[in-house]
Amino acid sequence: MNQLEKLDAAYIAGFLDGDGSIYVRVKPNATYKFGFQIAPNIVFFQSQKGIKILEELKELIGGGYIRFRKDGIAEYIIGDMITLQNLVKQIRPYLRLKKLQAELLIQILDQKSRVVTQEDFLSLVKLIDSFLTLNYSKKRKNGFTSVKTLLEQKL
Amino acid sequence: MNQLEKLDAAYIAGFLDGDGSIYVRVKPNATYKFGFQIAPNIVFFQSQKGIKILEELKELIGGGYIRFRKDGIAEYIIGDMITLQNLVKQIRPYLRLKKLQAELLIQILDQKSRVVTQEDFLSLVKLIDSFLTLNYSKKRKNGFTSVKTLLEQKL
Repeated sequence: MNQLEKLDAAYIAGFLDGDGSIYVRVKPNATYKFGFQIAPNIVFFQSQKGIKILEELKELIGGGYIRFRKDGIAEYIIGDMITLQNLVKQIRPYLRLKKLQAELLIQILDQKSRVVTQEDFLSLVKLIDSFLTLNYSKKRKNGFTSVKTLLEQKL
Repeated sequence: MNQLEKLDAAYIAGFLDGDGSIYVRVKPNATYKFGFQIAPNIVFFQSQKGIKILEELKELIGGGYIRFRKDGIAEYIIGDMITLQNLVKQIRPYLRLKKLQAELLIQILDQKSRVVTQEDFLSLVKLIDSFLTLNYSKKRKNGFTSVKTLLEQKL
């Protein structure tokens, strides 16, 4: 992850507010300690014609990868902790629309790195549920209540 | 139109690259000298839920208006010459994806203000046609050839 010029950080913040997304998924994965993978993401979208700008952003930011969806949309996805943490801290001062999401992401990344017990894990999932409201998302497969129920069944 | 802070100009450039549009329409209108209105626009899009950020941009830029489309999209539209000219000059240094469109718009605004003859007007329409390629637009109702044909029929 690169150290960004302030003007580049402001540009990226604008681009993300206009056409990007900050979200955290809770994915069932038996190889993880509590049976779920916590996957935070910052994603920039473009039609495949706009792929060049995604490559430029990737160059600028210095992390993440680009993938093509079947529906013709190209996504530049940042999912690794180090890049996410650095990026979100650098663009946060300039974000307007997604400022709260950025602050929540910082809190989640921090809390994620300190999870020890199942209680810690459930409190993290609860925090992630807050994205529901922020992102106007209507469905979340693995919210606090369903994860809690699943974990308690295992005991 | 306000004088923007550089960081705000960079933010707006990012937002426009991510989710905005620069275009010029050639609209038939008998009240105009050559039978067509040249309507340049910078537009920012959001779902109606994202209306607040459009209002914030409008506050920041100090011009234009917001309208709601029937399909649930809100548009912040800048169409008056003074605001367009000021805005595009201030954000041009930070644009990446739409830099060429911005430069073409500046050229068009300049040439538009100096139209006297029908030849001038047709050469302006030809310049506007260049947006076709830049915006990947497949159809343009009133391109150079059709406007030229119409104007020649009138003679």
